[in-house]
Amino acid sequence: MTAPSGIVTLLTDFGHRDPFVGMVKGVILGRFPAARIVDLTHEIPPYDVRAGAYWPARSYAGFPAGTVHVAVVDPGVGTSRAVVVAEARDQWLVVPDNGLCAELAARDGLVSVHMIDRVACRLGEPSRTFHGRDLLAPVAAMLASGALSPEAVGPATRLEGPRWERAVARPDGIEGRVIVRDRFGNLLTDVPAEAVERLANEPGPVPGQDPSQAGPWVWIGDRAVPWRRTYADVTVGALVALDNAHGDLEIAAREGNAAELLGAGPGTPVRVRRAAWSPDRSGGW
Amino acid sequence: MTAPSGIVTLLTDFGHRDPFVGMVKGVILGRFPAARIVDLTHEIPPYDVRAGAYWPARSYAGFPAGTVHVAVVDPGVGTSRAVVVAEARDQWLVVPDNGLCAELAARDGLVSVHMIDRVACRLGEPSRTFHGRDLLAPVAAMLASGALSPEAVGPATRLEGPRWERAVARPDGIEGRVIVRDRFGNLLTDVPAEAVERLANEPGPVPGQDPSQAGPWVWIGDRAVPWRRTYADVTVGALVALDNAHGDLEIAAREGNAAELLGAGPGTPVRVRRAAWSPDRSGGW
Amino acid sequence: MTAPSGIVTLLTDFGHRDPFVGMVKGVILGRFPAARIVDLTHEIPPYDVRAGAYWPARSYAGFPAGTVHVAVVDPGVGTSRAVVVAEARDQWLVVPDNGLCAELAARDGLVSVHMIDRVACRLGEPSRTFHGRDLLAPVAAMLASGALSPEAVGPATRLEGPRWERAVARPDGIEGRVIVRDRFGNLLTDVPAEAVERLANEPGPVPGQDPSQAGPWVWIGDRAVPWRRTYADVTVGALVALDNAHGDLEIAAREGNAAELLGAGPGTPVRVRRAAWSPDRSGGW
Repeated sequence: MTAPSGIVTLLTDFGHRDPFVGMVKGVILGRFPAARIVDLTHEIPPYDVRAGAYWPARSYAGFPAGTVHVAVVDPGVGTSRAVVVAEARDQWLVVPDNGLCAELAARDGLVSVHMIDRVACRLGEPSRTFHGRDLLAPVAAMLASGALSPEAVGPATRLEGPRWERAVARPDGIEGRVIVRDRFGNLLTDVPAEAVERLANEPGPVPGQDPSQAGPWVWIGDRAVPWRRTYADVTVGALVALDNAHGDLEIAAREGNAAELLGAGPGTPVRVRRAAWSPDRSGGW
Repeated sequence: MTAPSGIVTLLTDFGHRDPFVGMVKGVILGRFPAARIVDLTHEIPPYDVRAGAYWPARSYAGFPAGTVHVAVVDPGVGTSRAVVVAEARDQWLVVPDNGLCAELAARDGLVSVHMIDRVACRLGEPSRTFHGRDLLAPVAAMLASGALSPEAVGPATRLEGPRWERAVARPDGIEGRVIVRDRFGNLLTDVPAEAVERLANEPGPVPGQDPSQAGPWVWIGDRAVPWRRTYADVTVGALVALDNAHGDLEIAAREGNAAELLGAGPGTPVRVRRAAWSPDRSGGW
Repeated sequence: MTAPSGIVTLLTDFGHRDPFVGMVKGVILGRFPAARIVDLTHEIPPYDVRAGAYWPARSYAGFPAGTVHVAVVDPGVGTSRAVVVAEARDQWLVVPDNGLCAELAARDGLVSVHMIDRVACRLGEPSRTFHGRDLLAPVAAMLASGALSPEAVGPATRLEGPRWERAVARPDGIEGRVIVRDRFGNLLTDVPAEAVERLANEPGPVPGQDPSQAGPWVWIGDRAVPWRRTYADVTVGALVALDNAHGDLEIAAREGNAAELLGAGPGTPVRVRRAAWSPDRSGGW
């Protein structure tokens, strides 16, 4: 069995304007003074569960085994939606069952899911609007300190929340979408970088295409963006598609803002193919 | 006597753009390497002491006994305003005496107030513009480590700073105001939720009012907002008034932004009454 | 030899919107669980190495000896620019060699500079776009834990990155510029406060100037701003120039926003002189 690392991460849509995150930390430290608390982000757009679900699959694996990850983007607070403790690889998650860990579950699989039961966790009645402080924080503290095991928080269950569309491979390429616009205006997609890499390694030229235009090419709107290794492989200001260091296709503008340049953001379709001409014109999609 | 918890919280208007908060933490850790430092918020609007005063009364009680809370919203830095160490319940505050802990004092009372004396604290001459780093941080570190007791920082005194208007109960309801617009556009008021709850529990119908319109109702501008348990008690986008988990009346829009919907913010009057018609038309206020 | 303090500071342009900073912290804690990590700022404007270079010279000296400072504003990530470990006084820096620590080097001098060698540090192949996580974080953790000494990270070298223009003293005053606009709209310059103070202490009146107009005066655009001790030395809303507690000339508006009032920001020229009339009219510059 994995031993707790003593680390607790927080991912929320609470923002930085108000002391909500600090209150959550106070509860954690009150129950487990030695906790080391790491903020992942608190700037998920308010109520945007889909955006929040992007990051657990990409950030949790980098933490020591036995780390407890609290995620709160919870428009359903006060309804009957469950709050669960899930295990993925050797990491522990404390989340509302509303799709927030669905992408992680789809990618890595979950070892177990247990529904938090207040009585089993010896917790009082929570407020109706701040379960992050009253429910998830104390459970996270008890998990991180070893006072409670994931199995002891309540009955075993399975995720009931929504799942998310995923990028799909087609005979002539990959079809996905932008999920996150990051701080730099980079567009982070749900297209696995290794799938693009496989396309890059397909043998043989594209019929009718000049070898100097070797792809793959990433189509977004009416622009074709070349797949490269790093930002510096294009000139300053130019668009480039690359592996974003989290395993996904990212579209960036070198030292610029791709989201503004392209007028694109979450939901914008992205298509990857070997040919340097438009999938719309080619009829390939 | 309360033993220090080793936790120091920070509440400032320093923002996140510059390294000011980090410099304060460096000073604290330099004097007390084992300090556990929690950010409450650094996004109090610049110089807005009234907004800053809202949170100590609502967030400090959740921390372990003997926690040191530093609050710096200090437009008077460099003037003769005092910096004090105050005790409220079992929490210790380090604040300029400018009204920043007046709401906490009015709600919970203060056990003691001592004026920081540089000589008693063995501190050098501070800069003229950054007392958070040069004065409050080292005192907080010494309190949190146990090197200094609240009584030893300087002579006993009493708060001289301004006080704040508070919500008032009237025969036909409660009159208060919005103090904080939070990250979600929720409007946090100075009206105690338990006062609204008492109104809700008054026996007997409102004369002339259909029982299906049972309140209380919260009037803001020309809108009457119903008092409910949680966000999910209204439809998505609808306005709702509820206990905000900090003990106060909050006006929210479910998964929406009440401040934008209502064009309201800090200072907007709020009136609570049992009747579902306008206090302006009824002459009741 | 300096022993590590166990503290690691972070200064980046990563922002707070995404979990990039949290991922860096996860790597540090994974290698050195007892690390105490302090955020200096993550809101350096994207790719703005010049703005980032302002702060190391002003904030690092306040930390305990043996503190490790990681700075990442790195538009050249993935190019051949080196990443170095530098010693300044008793502080250790981990930075790309792109000018980010050039101002610190110019002010304090560097004790040593070593180029990080992956093999010497026993690090795997980093991603091409996130060296903060894959290269700087593990090296910082090893330095902070004592597992690695600054000399052991790789061969001794010298900084190759760009240097920055500095304020210059002239016979009739000082010429500098705004480098940073802070959260309050204060304009932080590269003019050393002690140079202004020397000007203030020059004996004798300015020929033709009323003694009541004794300076120095700080010219920005067509405005002359008086040099004072603290914000409270002018009326609310008025402009004031003072020592910003980091050793530099700052132009502020008391409880206001000087940047907005003056339409000024990074790059705006600033001139200091004893006379209260325009350097442009006087021909003195």
